[in-house]
Parts: sequence; structure tokens; C-alpha cells
Amino acid sequence: MQEVVTRDGFQNEARFVDTDEKIKLINQLSQCGYARIEVTSFTSPKAIPALRDAEQVMKGIKRHPGIDYTVLVPNLRGAERALSCDVDEANLVMSASESHNLSNLRMTCEQSFHGLSEVIKEIQPTRTAINVSLSTAFGCPMEGDIPLETVLSWVERFAEQGVRGITLCDTTGMAYPTQVAEVVDKFRERFHNLQLTVHLHNTRGMALSNALAAIEAGADRFDSALGGLGGCPYAPGATGNVCTEDLVHMLELMGYRTGIALEQILEAASQLPALVHHDVPSQVLKAGHRLNLHAVPDLVKEHAGN
Amino acid sequence: MQEVVTRDGFQNEARFVDTDEKIKLINQLSQCGYARIEVTSFTSPKAIPALRDAEQVMKGIKRHPGIDYTVLVPNLRGAERALSCDVDEANLVMSASESHNLSNLRMTCEQSFHGLSEVIKEIQPTRTAINVSLSTAFGCPMEGDIPLETVLSWVERFAEQGVRGITLCDTTGMAYPTQVAEVVDKFRERFHNLQLTVHLHNTRGMALSNALAAIEAGADRFDSALGGLGGCPYAPGATGNVCTEDLVHMLELMGYRTGIALEQILEAASQLPALVHHDVPSQVLKAGHRLNLHAVPDLVKEHAGN
Repeated sequence: MQEVVTRDGFQNEARFVDTDEKIKLINQLSQCGYARIEVTSFTSPKAIPALRDAEQVMKGIKRHPGIDYTVLVPNLRGAERALSCDVDEANLVMSASESHNLSNLRMTCEQSFHGLSEVIKEIQPTRTAINVSLSTAFGCPMEGDIPLETVLSWVERFAEQGVRGITLCDTTGMAYPTQVAEVVDKFRERFHNLQLTVHLHNTRGMALSNALAAIEAGADRFDSALGGLGGCPYAPGATGNVCTEDLVHMLELMGYRTGIALEQILEAASQLPALVHHDVPSQVLKAGHRLNLHAVPDLVKEHAGN
Repeated sequence: MQEVVTRDGFQNEARFVDTDEKIKLINQLSQCGYARIEVTSFTSPKAIPALRDAEQVMKGIKRHPGIDYTVLVPNLRGAERALSCDVDEANLVMSASESHNLSNLRMTCEQSFHGLSEVIKEIQPTRTAINVSLSTAFGCPMEGDIPLETVLSWVERFAEQGVRGITLCDTTGMAYPTQVAEVVDKFRERFHNLQLTVHLHNTRGMALSNALAAIEAGADRFDSALGGLGGCPYAPGATGNVCTEDLVHMLELMGYRTGIALEQILEAASQLPALVHHDVPSQVLKAGHRLNLHAVPDLVKEHAGN
């Protein structure tokens, strides 16, 4: 499990979450059993003011042995900033869709690829691992479906450059279970040694179902956000990233071992509404574990005594 | 697909939805391709004031050929009222859990069973079909898990009385996919000629995943509520019934034919916030169909022209 709340969760929040609140939250999450935590994003502070404190956060947290601390890196400038913080992993990003890449990053996909190739060359001599997140891998809100071959050919070009892993992102919640199964299956068929992360959004309610489809097809890593934070600008009011506690709750019930301490992340999630000043989409935070039982009313006790 | 919004959806609403608004909504839903619509509940108007207009609604709607119009019937008095309206089906209800039955219906399960047996005898000579909804079949908020054998033995006792169908209800959203698969599987193994409906709540976010597990195990009918209405008193703020439009959207993408006209139910769902005076949990209502594409921004068009 890979937590993205302080990056993908906070980046769209209107209210700036204080630097020391971010650090405190990450330190708390570091005790909960994650494999990887995406701390922040080294994008331009002008583009994403919510994460303008990236260096302070990355340098301020207490790193827990065994967790990879990763940051989003869009370009060479971001790579330099990330390396100056000695991050465990740099998470590079581009879209599988031309329109989305142009509107999000102001470059064609080919331009992005060449830019990221420079970034990879810069990072490769260091101890920092490289992951590439492919946005809109399950559909683009402007173009619709992206041919699977297009997605896989970008994966191949990055694989040839020796990256450690690829994240297939359902950026705007367009993925559906049979599609996820096919994409993950084909990815696994073709790329045996590449770490595969699936990054899901719950925009249309299918995130947990998609996660199950991905697991069954052989994905073993998920990005998720505490509280389900991370709204999508294309679907105002719809929920954000797949919610960590909802995903962990379901997977553990089904017998999967996530390594995550559910009670501890619920404790951390309970602080989110105060940090972002609004309710969060998490369901298990509101309803509790399915076996958090309620007291039997007195009238029932009397009857039962009959 | 079986719509329950005007019964399970409205029954917990603080604001009374006007009788003519209910009738208008049901008439609209009758054009959308449902197999069954649960119109209202013939419970005591004192117990559920939101549905105190049960007769007026049931007699006021325009019935569409091919749709079964069903009503909730808790007791003999309810059965008489339902028969006076010539409903296509009476949906009797009791819990599989003693505590829940006591707190919800003020009777032991055995007392409920005997009461419902009287109801069945009353209805059987008429043209009205009989379905029994077993609440808390996937867990009780006070007792926790209910042994599967307990659930199936209630099914068997009703089957012996000749009911047409059984609905297994996840009343407070405690079901999880592997459990649903097991329960449905065992039900199917033992009862070949009994119609099986699965009634899911999204209290802990798992409703769509549970629906897929149920389909794969052989369930073919689902209750669902437009807009995802129908909160649960044990989980304030958590969402309600599995949302019809979210379920239909996912199933159709996966190649299942639900018979439901998605655009038409979305049109109907869009009126719900005005009827209940609050936002509804539906995701697809907010985000639209995954292929409702967005315009390409001008800057992207310019680039694409390069």
C-alpha cells in the first residue's frame, strides 16, 4: 500500500495545510505499515501553491526504515530539488493521452518523454529509484479511451530506460473492472520485472471494484489516499482517490494482508476534516469497521430474558 | 433491477416528499426498464410517517405492463392494505438476527415468522406474489456475524410455505465480497427454484464490489436506490442503498445488460436533491458517464495543430 494523501490529496485543497501539520501527519502514517509514502510534489510552487513547502516537508519528516519516501517530479528542476532532499524514489509523470498532457503539462507526450528521459539520466547515477506515473491510462476526459497499445508502448519506452516501476493512473475515474483486468493482465504478460502500481480514483464509485479486478489480474501495489481525498477538476463534488481505509478494510476482510494497521490509519484519518476544513469521502471513517458493534437496546435485553 | 428509492430511500428522510411528487417519480421510473419497483411500505404511519401516504401513492401511480409493483408488508394489517391496492407482490420482512428483529419489529424472530406465516396464508389465494426480505443476512450491527445456517434455515422455512422469492439484505452495509460470494453460492446450491434478490447498502463503500461478487455467484436480481438514498441509522453520514445509476453504469460497461435506460434514470435522479432537500451520494450523477467527454481547451487545440 502506498499513501498519497499529502501529495494527491492535498494538492487540490483550497486551504493550505500548514507545513508542520503535513509533517506530523506523515510521521504518524510512517508508523502504520505502508510500503511507500508519496510525500509531496516538486512542481512549481506557482502551479500548485498547496505544496509550495515541498522541501521543508521532505526535509522535516522523520523517515522510517523500510518505507520508500517518494515525491512527484515533473521535470529536471524538480529532479534537482528531489535529489537535494535525498528522496528514496522520484515519481515522474506524463499522460498517455495527448490532450491531457497538453492541458496538464503544456507539452506533447513526445516532448514530455524527452524531458523525462533527461530527468532519468540525471537521477540514475544516484541511489534514488525511478517510477513513472502514466496519467489517463484508463481513459482521458477529453479523448475518451486510450488504445491499450499506446499505453503499453509508453511503458515499454520507459522500461527500456531502466525505470524500476510504472504506475497506471485512472486520473479521472474512468476505469471499470473488466478494463482494469485486461490492462493489468496485458501489462503483466509483457513486463515481468517492472513494479506495477495501480492508482485509482473513485469518481464514478468503482474504485474498490477496480482494485479487486487489478489484484486478481496480478497487480500488487496500490496508491490510495487517506480519507479518499483528492477531488478531480472534471467532476466537481465527486470523490477523489480510492480511500485507503475503505480499501484496507475490504481487503483485510477478504483475507488479503495489506500490512496496514487499520485502527491507526483511522485515527490519522479522523484528523483530516480539521486539516482541510471539510468532510472527507471516507466511508469506514464514518461507519467504522463492520464489527464495531452497537449496544443492544434495553428493550431487546428484556425480551431476550424471556 | 429493482428500484427501492421511494420506499427504502424515502423512509428515512426527515422531509416528507409530497404524494404527487412520489407518484410523478414512480411514473417516470416506470419508463426506465425496471423489472420491479418497490413503491412504498404498508407499515404503521406512526412508525414511518414519511410513507404515511402509502395507499394514495400505490393507487395513484400508472402501472406499466411487465413491471412488478411491490410494497413492504410487515404484518396482517399491512397485507390487507396491500391487497386492497391489488399489488403485484408483497414484500414481507423480518431479520435473521434476534437483536435486530427485536429492536426493529419488537418481536422475536420466531414471533415474526409466525406472524408472517399468517400473512402468507392471507395472500396466497390472491394473484399477489410473495417475497420475503431477510434483514441483517450479512451481519447484525448488534450481534455481528449471523451464522449462514441460521440465515438459510429461515430461507428454508419460508420456501416450504411456497413464497416466490427471498431477498438477502445487507441492512447496515456489513457484507464484503468473499462473504457475499459464499452466501449466494450456498443459497443457490440449496434453493433452485427460489428467486434470489440481493439488497446491498454502501455504508462501508463495498456495495458495487459486493454486487459483482453476487453476480458471479449466481444472483440475478438487485434492489438499488436512485441517487443512493437510504441512510442507515447506525452510520450517520455514511451513504445508503447501493446507487442504481452507479450500479447500472458499471454493469453496462462490463457487458452486462441491465435493461435500464441510464440516461433516463440520471434524468430522474437529478430531481432528487430538490425532493429531499440535500445532496445525494450518487457518483455518476455528479461525474456523468465515463464517456461524457469534456471540451478540449483552446491551448491544446493550438498545440495539436503544430
